[in-house]
Amino acid sequence: MLATIMYGAGDVRMETVPDPVLRQPTDAVVRVVASCICGSDLWPFGSMPRSEQGRRMGHEFLGVVEDVGTAVPGFQVGDLVLAPFVWADNTCDFCREGLQTSCRHGGGWGVDGVDGGQGEAVRVPQAQGTLVKLPVAVDSELLPSLLTLSDVFCTGHHAAVSAGVNPRTTVTVIGDGAVGLCAVLAARRLGAERIILAGRHKDRTDLGREFGATDVVAERGEEGVAAVRELTGGDGTHAVLECVGTQAAVDMAIDIVRDGGTVGRVGAAQYRQVPFGFDTFLRNITITGGVAPARAYIEELLPDVMEGNIEPGRVFDRTIGFEEVPAGYQAMADRESLKVLIRP
Amino acid sequence: MLATIMYGAGDVRMETVPDPVLRQPTDAVVRVVASCICGSDLWPFGSMPRSEQGRRMGHEFLGVVEDVGTAVPGFQVGDLVLAPFVWADNTCDFCREGLQTSCRHGGGWGVDGVDGGQGEAVRVPQAQGTLVKLPVAVDSELLPSLLTLSDVFCTGHHAAVSAGVNPRTTVTVIGDGAVGLCAVLAARRLGAERIILAGRHKDRTDLGREFGATDVVAERGEEGVAAVRELTGGDGTHAVLECVGTQAAVDMAIDIVRDGGTVGRVGAAQYRQVPFGFDTFLRNITITGGVAPARAYIEELLPDVMEGNIEPGRVFDRTIGFEEVPAGYQAMADRESLKVLIRP
Repeated sequence: MLATIMYGAGDVRMETVPDPVLRQPTDAVVRVVASCICGSDLWPFGSMPRSEQGRRMGHEFLGVVEDVGTAVPGFQVGDLVLAPFVWADNTCDFCREGLQTSCRHGGGWGVDGVDGGQGEAVRVPQAQGTLVKLPVAVDSELLPSLLTLSDVFCTGHHAAVSAGVNPRTTVTVIGDGAVGLCAVLAARRLGAERIILAGRHKDRTDLGREFGATDVVAERGEEGVAAVRELTGGDGTHAVLECVGTQAAVDMAIDIVRDGGTVGRVGAAQYRQVPFGFDTFLRNITITGGVAPARAYIEELLPDVMEGNIEPGRVFDRTIGFEEVPAGYQAMADRESLKVLIRP
Repeated sequence: MLATIMYGAGDVRMETVPDPVLRQPTDAVVRVVASCICGSDLWPFGSMPRSEQGRRMGHEFLGVVEDVGTAVPGFQVGDLVLAPFVWADNTCDFCREGLQTSCRHGGGWGVDGVDGGQGEAVRVPQAQGTLVKLPVAVDSELLPSLLTLSDVFCTGHHAAVSAGVNPRTTVTVIGDGAVGLCAVLAARRLGAERIILAGRHKDRTDLGREFGATDVVAERGEEGVAAVRELTGGDGTHAVLECVGTQAAVDMAIDIVRDGGTVGRVGAAQYRQVPFGFDTFLRNITITGGVAPARAYIEELLPDVMEGNIEPGRVFDRTIGFEEVPAGYQAMADRESLKVLIRP
């Protein structure tokens, strides 16, 4: 089958790899119907050292069950299923606490003999715990929005949930990428009425306004901090959803959060330290979040997607086939595309 | 009256200062019955640059109302009252949220014309919001435990509350000072059954065991991390209460918290940065806490002190008069005394 392999920064290729087969009774094989490129894929696309073996890419996909092991009683061949961006048994203590990203028997896509999502098919370990059946047909117009439950919308939701967003909290979202826009949508869904979006790409912040942002701050750094403080009477906002992952973004988050408030970070951390000394101590600031346990949120978010109350799939502004995957990476890296949907 | 003034590292003197008088209708004047020296007083005692003017010391006290302004309807001359370690109006939005340390009209003791607690009397601004009436006589044996509600026990409680301690969480407390021991007691009070105390002074950790610690780890640094991990099957604990404030302590806290867990920090932060990069991102670690809003907790904790369910006053291992205050500082700095009670 065809699969996406990255051999180093800027070098993504579609290549033929062995078709996946069941290896364990807990496996399933899923034929991919829709996949996508993640903002986090751009980090290796920008900086990955050259590799002879390459790295299988993709961790967001939905598709049709093609084969199923004997220890996967909940799924049948032909089921349309969604995979969250890590696989997990969904029964261990971490999973029961809603932290499937730390599952004792789980792991990531594209490593250790597990396929990536940007390919024609995927062997899914721990399929019973990992997969979620989708109650739609394979040609449903809801597929793009359902696909966001694999990662990007759940990641925005995780930022909002971990930062304690509710109808009484003011919110700033840092970053107008797909995760940031999903964080706006998630904060609005949780009832926030004042949502400041910090981003400088007008086409993206315009979609952010449609998702629920009430204010847009285009400035960065100190000017951005000043702008958010001015919008909030000097206080900053109760919740800050950090959706970029750079040092500048997390520094800004800490500078604009209100005393007693919370930074929910979901941008893949490219920094090693956060400034969290005596000033933040006096202000009782919290930093939380991390990699989103999407599996914990899918059932809760699915009805709102099914009923059309939210349309997170609007973050996809380009749909490509496999032959265009390398160009899709480049388009996202060049900020020509917000998020790329792959339909094999 | 006599008051404690620090003129630089190691230089604490008892000096005569003007008697406090009402300046605002919202003031009260309180004659101090019991005060104490705080672990946080040891930071300037170790490093304060020499000052001609000096710094008024003390932020924990209880006493008898001696004079009261016209805008303080809830108190009368003769009332025995407790003061939390910052003063606050207890009506602004921050106070209503339980963050009196960020009160819009509040401040600290010993600065800006407000007396410190280590003296014969104190002018209390915003007295109606700040003071709490104590339902005991001035010669009650409960006074030491009641005095801990001014700061040290509420600070330990804040660590436990902000870290989400409950009967289902395992807990590590870093630090066997008075705050750390109070954090053990607070965690036990909140139902924690497994409480690991990281400390290396046996007399202190022995009191920690009486307060509820189930395990003691005397090792520090990497060995301390390994010891806590070994005690917890490799996982670390759900909650880590950081009660020291050094870089080493906060680094250790992050290394021993379980995936998805929370570090509640209440040690006055002497560090500027915390290591909070990709590893902690993947583990969904939270850092929270800060300076404790004692005022928010006093009413909740008071009954357990009154009924003798908890005896946080046991952290006081020495009682002195004013003439011994400089020696009291030295005793605490030399670790000869855990916490010093001052009875004028």
